[in-house]
Amino acid sequence: MKRDKEKDLEGLQNFELLLDQVMTPPAGGPYPVWEAARYSLLGQGKRLRPKLLFAACQLFGPPPAQAPVFACALEMVHTYSLIHDDLPAMDNDDFRRGRPSCHKVFGEATAILAGDLLLNGAYELMAESLVSQPDPGPLAAMEVLARAAGGHGMILGQDRDLAQEGLETASLEQIQKTAQWKTAGLIQAALLMGGHLSGAREQALEVLALCGLAAGIAFQIRDDILDCASNRATLGKTPHKDQAAGKKTFVSLAGLEGAGRLLEEKTQEASLAIRNLSQMGCMTESLEELIRLLVERNY
Amino acid sequence: MKRDKEKDLEGLQNFELLLDQVMTPPAGGPYPVWEAARYSLLGQGKRLRPKLLFAACQLFGPPPAQAPVFACALEMVHTYSLIHDDLPAMDNDDFRRGRPSCHKVFGEATAILAGDLLLNGAYELMAESLVSQPDPGPLAAMEVLARAAGGHGMILGQDRDLAQEGLETASLEQIQKTAQWKTAGLIQAALLMGGHLSGAREQALEVLALCGLAAGIAFQIRDDILDCASNRATLGKTPHKDQAAGKKTFVSLAGLEGAGRLLEEKTQEASLAIRNLSQMGCMTESLEELIRLLVERNY
Repeated sequence: MKRDKEKDLEGLQNFELLLDQVMTPPAGGPYPVWEAARYSLLGQGKRLRPKLLFAACQLFGPPPAQAPVFACALEMVHTYSLIHDDLPAMDNDDFRRGRPSCHKVFGEATAILAGDLLLNGAYELMAESLVSQPDPGPLAAMEVLARAAGGHGMILGQDRDLAQEGLETASLEQIQKTAQWKTAGLIQAALLMGGHLSGAREQALEVLALCGLAAGIAFQIRDDILDCASNRATLGKTPHKDQAAGKKTFVSLAGLEGAGRLLEEKTQEASLAIRNLSQMGCMTESLEELIRLLVERNY
Repeated sequence: MKRDKEKDLEGLQNFELLLDQVMTPPAGGPYPVWEAARYSLLGQGKRLRPKLLFAACQLFGPPPAQAPVFACALEMVHTYSLIHDDLPAMDNDDFRRGRPSCHKVFGEATAILAGDLLLNGAYELMAESLVSQPDPGPLAAMEVLARAAGGHGMILGQDRDLAQEGLETASLEQIQKTAQWKTAGLIQAALLMGGHLSGAREQALEVLALCGLAAGIAFQIRDDILDCASNRATLGKTPHKDQAAGKKTFVSLAGLEGAGRLLEEKTQEASLAIRNLSQMGCMTESLEELIRLLVERNY
């Protein structure tokens, strides 16, 4: 058990080193935009999405050579979305990952640019990798990420989230749809990217999509529950924010117990999908463990 | 002559139609973020960068099938940069392309998101095209765009631009470097994308790079001159803004005459490169005409 943990830690350290390396600033700095992007990216993130990408690869064998670079790109897209979402004009959050948020340290202009740098940089990184090795799997992985992050996915979710703040009421269905776009889509993309990078077949990709969607919704429900129940030291960001902002969440609509039941439901869906993958001959241990952590987390 | 103009106009109308089509919003709207992105993208843009891309293709023959999609992606990246640059935290500009800027109409949050949508959408579009046809030329074109738009290019230029506002002095060399990153790089990328899409050889790509850089710097010098000399109706954006903001420009550093001389110099460099391309057997008429318009424009 100890050896496994050490092994995990080593893998993660390698990932942190690569993330640092791909974000090497140009000569002649320091440049505020690079300082800001590195501050937000190389902070205390859980690296959940990269871990999911790796776990999805491991379903099919050792992760292929391109996996770490695509995991970096995924984390960069996630981090850009946090920086922009935290801006005063958006969710106006002063804390993130246990530290002052990007615009609090570097100012709004540099924070906007730093988000842009990370978003564009993710594609720059994938494009560079693809030019030297234009395989269908990595190309599909890039398309999955672009689709999940874009105006039919995460950006649409943030748009809906902003719109729902002003509403008197919202249905559980609407909240679930918004969560799917804003949060679950990128978690689903993490699994699908891993699948595509590993050359998974259509049938496995379909089950991965189901698993990612259920796990992603479960993740958001857990987030809403934690927002009610936790404190800033544990959470690393401002708690009770949703409530204060009058945001419609799974908890505000279904109550703490109802949200708990829905969380259980979605967790079961994800587990079912994992059993399905196991029956296809996939090695599901890493993914199983990760999704358990994801829905049981206290931070 | 009249027939040629009509032909050009038809080409441009097709491009406008495609741009509209690739930006079809998801069902179930209207969604503010899509309204905002479409408002800024489908406005009165000069479409200079797409035109340059097409002209670079035409050096080598009829534009390949992927050219219009990549031209859309290029225009989307350019438009995102205008939306974010105009934000109050950045250059705080109320007018753009002859109309109120995006955040004046849709608010800051939606404008930030609309910029994100266009930036991400550009890569979404290219990725989609590449998945169905993973050729080396289009892949290289995507990499060129990503590099020019990113933290070693346009974003670094905007970072420098913001930093230079606060400085007492700046050298002409610094201004030229900033212009290279912020503006000329994307104009250079337009030509290189066209070259890559058309399968141009290394030698031609090198000359295209020189041509694009010189034309891009010339474009920025012309911009600085127009900022001093024009009015809002002609310009479509707020004139005399650089001066009011104490911005370091080619004009503020070299004077109107000095800037004019530098403009002439850069125009000559671009012309020399075009003659070079012509000697290689390229059909340079479209590019020549376009670059002439670019440095002589009054808007």
